[in-house]
Amino acid sequence: MRKSRGELEALIDLMAKLPGLGPRSARRAVLHLVTKRVELMTPLARAMDHVAHSARFCAECRNITTVDTCDICRDPKRQTDVLCVVQDVSDLWAMERSNAYRGRYFVLGGTLSALDAIGPEDLGIPDLIARLHAEPVEEVIIALPATIEGQTTAHYISSELPEGITSSTLAQGIPIGGELDYLDEGTITAALSARKSV
Amino acid sequence: MRKSRGELEALIDLMAKLPGLGPRSARRAVLHLVTKRVELMTPLARAMDHVAHSARFCAECRNITTVDTCDICRDPKRQTDVLCVVQDVSDLWAMERSNAYRGRYFVLGGTLSALDAIGPEDLGIPDLIARLHAEPVEEVIIALPATIEGQTTAHYISSELPEGITSSTLAQGIPIGGELDYLDEGTITAALSARKSV
Repeated sequence: MRKSRGELEALIDLMAKLPGLGPRSARRAVLHLVTKRVELMTPLARAMDHVAHSARFCAECRNITTVDTCDICRDPKRQTDVLCVVQDVSDLWAMERSNAYRGRYFVLGGTLSALDAIGPEDLGIPDLIARLHAEPVEEVIIALPATIEGQTTAHYISSELPEGITSSTLAQGIPIGGELDYLDEGTITAALSARKSV
Repeated sequence: MRKSRGELEALIDLMAKLPGLGPRSARRAVLHLVTKRVELMTPLARAMDHVAHSARFCAECRNITTVDTCDICRDPKRQTDVLCVVQDVSDLWAMERSNAYRGRYFVLGGTLSALDAIGPEDLGIPDLIARLHAEPVEEVIIALPATIEGQTTAHYISSELPEGITSSTLAQGIPIGGELDYLDEGTITAALSARKSV
């Protein structure tokens, strides 16, 4: 006798391991999938299987890609004189969504942390420096989180840059649409000290 | 030139169609999957593909199953004298989690609604009544939501029951662990009118 509930349960258990989904929302998602087998479940299973086989990290920038070198690194229209250092692939995606940056990237995959024993080698920083020596990069934009680890990492990278390459970081201030009342003191202090004349 | 970003984007777009996931959480989920390809992504793709091919509605109770008749309907240890009518498969699963019910089920898949033109046939109520005529059911537990549509449907089912079959509904009252301060007036009124002597 085949256990029918077992197969559904197994799928629910796997779905519940995704970030943002718990057992309850995994059950809802599986019910939704079962009612939309042709339009959603089969294509999703196929897309997932496909990406599971082909996903890898870009050899140049450590972005996630399904080919050896990612679309951004291969794009001849991208600027080669500027390189943006980000913490994670999700940050790279966020930068891309802004459509405000046309250079290339380097994904660290984390930040320096003495506590977790994460050193420069774990983040590929030696590779980054080697790349900066080899390529015509003039400016490195360090877009790391405004946390202590992020800022330590940013400082370390700046200090290791080859001579002649400038470094910059993203401006801090009030987010667009942000109301002062809802912002923390640190953001307001940063926005105030970087104020501009109108 | 293969579009690498396209395949990831396609997967993210499909994931974002799941209930409870938006574009942002779909991106997070896909990043998580890519970093756990062997442990999570491949098994999930396989489980999904498997269920997509085998999932169907139980011919007896309209539960979701991967075989023709679901585990519950085939289980000889289940009581045959009591049948529980629920709105959705998720409600059946919730009843099963309680471990308090050992009878069988019938899943309507909705409630009667004049507004949405959902009649008894759409909910399989004629099948339910036919089944009640054929089987040795003595009690029908109507576990439908405490909404107007749910109660209308419950009332309709009660009125259609074959002679000699009793119907009951779940008790209304204070949920276990519920604080009066957070409960709506309707619940408190129902709990008060159904009060029991200690």
